[in-house]
This record gives sequence, C-alpha cells and structure tokens, in this order.
Amino acid sequence: MLVKNYTGDVLNFETAAELADVDGIAARSVVIDDDVAVQDSTNTAGRRGVGGTLMVEKIAGAAAERGASLDECARIAQRVVDGVRSMGVALAAPTVPHAGEPSFQLGADEVEVGIGIHGEPGRERVPLAPASELVRQLLEPILADLPFVEGDEVVLLTNSMGGTPQLELYAAHGIAERLLAERGITVARRLVGAYVTSLEMQGMSLSLLRLDDELRGLWDAPVDTPALRW
Amino acid sequence: MLVKNYTGDVLNFETAAELADVDGIAARSVVIDDDVAVQDSTNTAGRRGVGGTLMVEKIAGAAAERGASLDECARIAQRVVDGVRSMGVALAAPTVPHAGEPSFQLGADEVEVGIGIHGEPGRERVPLAPASELVRQLLEPILADLPFVEGDEVVLLTNSMGGTPQLELYAAHGIAERLLAERGITVARRLVGAYVTSLEMQGMSLSLLRLDDELRGLWDAPVDTPALRW
Repeated sequence: MLVKNYTGDVLNFETAAELADVDGIAARSVVIDDDVAVQDSTNTAGRRGVGGTLMVEKIAGAAAERGASLDECARIAQRVVDGVRSMGVALAAPTVPHAGEPSFQLGADEVEVGIGIHGEPGRERVPLAPASELVRQLLEPILADLPFVEGDEVVLLTNSMGGTPQLELYAAHGIAERLLAERGITVARRLVGAYVTSLEMQGMSLSLLRLDDELRGLWDAPVDTPALRW
Repeated sequence: MLVKNYTGDVLNFETAAELADVDGIAARSVVIDDDVAVQDSTNTAGRRGVGGTLMVEKIAGAAAERGASLDECARIAQRVVDGVRSMGVALAAPTVPHAGEPSFQLGADEVEVGIGIHGEPGRERVPLAPASELVRQLLEPILADLPFVEGDEVVLLTNSMGGTPQLELYAAHGIAERLLAERGITVARRLVGAYVTSLEMQGMSLSLLRLDDELRGLWDAPVDTPALRW
C-alpha cells in the first residue's frame, strides 16, 4: 500500500492492513512524504505526499510487474520515498465542489508557495514574480533538503496542478532544467503534464528523484496506463 | 500544408506556397474548417479550424510516414477534413498575454457555447447547465452537420481548452460516449486531454471523425510525438 502522508489516509490504510491481515492477506505500507514545503499542515502530521507519489507508483509497480516479492516491492518503494523531494506553487486556488468557493483567495498579483494537493494553503504568500524566480523558489528548498548535489542524475517531474496551460508548464520546465544544469545536476528523465492534481488549481509542482541504476532500470521499464505509456 | 481556416493563416500559407514554388518546391494546401459553431467569426471567412486539426495531422502524417506522395497525402488530409466536425464551450475566457485581460467576461453561472481557440466569442451565451446538458449542446450540432448516423464508427476527441481539470474532462467524455451509444454511433477510438488549446481557457471541445478502413488504419499507425504516442 502506497499511502500519501495525510492523517486520514494513514489511519484508514492502517485499518485496511489490519483487515487484510485478518483475512490472511499479507500487506506492507510505505508512506510517501515528499513535500518539502511544510512540516505539518491542515491534514498532516509530518510532510505531505504529493508529486513524488507518481515516481513511487511507477517504480514499485515496475518491480511488482517483474515478479518482485512484497517485501522487495516495499523496499524499492521506500528507496524512492528516500530519494524524492517536491514543492508546489499556486496562482489560483481550486474550488472543492462541496465547498463551492475557492479554498483560499489570491490576488491577481500574488502566488501561494508551498501549496498541497487538497487546497491546503502553502507556507507563504509572495508577490507574483517572473517564472524564472518562481521556479527558483521551488527548486532551492528541494535541492537543499535531500540534498541533491553536483553530479546527481535525476528524474524531473514538472506537474500541472490541473488548470495550468501546457505553454506555461513547459516554460517552467525549461527553466528548471537550466537551473539544474547550472548546478551540475543531470536531468536524465523528465515528465511534463497534469499528473498529481488538485481539480482546476492553476499552478505547478516540481518533483526531483535521484536516480541510480536500480531506480533508472525500473523507471524505464515498459508501462501502459492512461497517464504513462512507454 | 495543413492550414486552419483563419484569414491570416490562409493568406500567409498562400504566400508560403508561392515562395516554395519559386524555389522549385512542390506544395499542396489543405484548409481545415471543422468547427460547426459559427459560419464566420472574428478572424475567419467560413468556418474555423479547431480540434479536428489533430486528426488531420495524425492521419496525413501517418500517410507521409508510409511514403505516400504529396498528392496522396493531400487527398487523405482532405478526406479527414470532409469527415470531421467539432464544437467547443468555455466556462472562463483565456487571457492573451499582450492583452492582459480576459478575451470576454463570463459570469460564474454562464457559459459561452461555440468558442474558438483564440479567445473569439462563441455563438451564444447560455446559463451554466449540468455537464450532460452542455455535452448534448455540443454533440447535437456536430451530429446534425455531417450528418453522423446510426452505424457510424468514429474517433471521439474530448479536448481540454487548456485550463480544464481532467476529472471534468473525463466526466464529459463519458457522457459523450453514452449519448453517442444511444444514437447507435460507435466510438471506436478516443482521446481525452489538452491537445488543441487556448492558453488557460476553462472549457472543452468535442471532435468527431467518421472512420472507414483507410482512415482507421492510418489513425492506428504508430506515432511517437510529445503529445501522441502509440
């Protein structure tokens, strides 16, 4: 079970694991907490699970597809969690249907840095800045946290929060690749698109996963899903 | 040259064809005008080229990839134009960067039916309605126009205008498939995503292409681009 680190999710998946155990079904849980933006948030003890979830699901999925044991899949999933870091920014909040109004209010000249995927506010509200500056504000906390260092090879996911045009997303991605190149970090694999989203939120997140031979091989393994296909 | 039917595009591609001719390069033009919403619009004499462009490019591209002659590629592109019809709806207008404000204003309870891809207004502004009703308002003019009839096989493209969350897009696609099934029209191939967009416009378009053996074979031919891969 790949569980994003939100209090409700963690509790419910623990119950699911116990129920599976009662039925004699072995279960292992790996908790995903890749968001470097906030330590605790509205729905979380500890860090949130965000865009890095895609990396965990892809790579652990490839291991399972190859016939790896449950313990081995859990080990690999945990390795991805250990090597992935993310952060996001919003230009406009999403509207959760049952709430009927935006989760937070942003002026036309403000952005919310460090947002989550459920409309939770971020860690600070800052003036709208050029894309290169916004990308830098996401990348620096990500890089400092693991830390990622010169010589690293990474997967870079530039993820739309749901309502971001591809033109802007690719522009941001290009800036991120350039900033990483300046640090001597090689983007060996990349994904740009709406993968881990928050309804129609306008904004994006960056996720970086440090690659090694094991993770690269599993990332490159064939996949055939609606969202990923190679 | 696959030219969307906008006055400026048509003029410029005509010039390009003449310049190519001067250089001894053979050129053929096919004008795409699949939008059933409006006869003439802000930038158009005749109908606009919209989502159907993807079908023309994919299928004529597959013919070229197989080594078809220029005339043969033009013939096939024209067959796609003859068999594809589209229409779109917006829940919010895009903001063209140099203009700096939305191309048109919509209330929270209004939608613009029949929008183009450059922020042109549509053919009517109507009250916001349930998704099933909006999808029906797009499908009926499309079906009546060709017309598509019971027994037809089609490609259905449910296209985000750029700022539409995938959750809503897939909901609309599902409704469209159901309405088509009720008419005895088989959705043999489908695409759901942001393909022919208008910056961050919230809304969608539907495009239907009637298939036969020739077009189906070319649609199914392998493709490897950032947007399409199979």
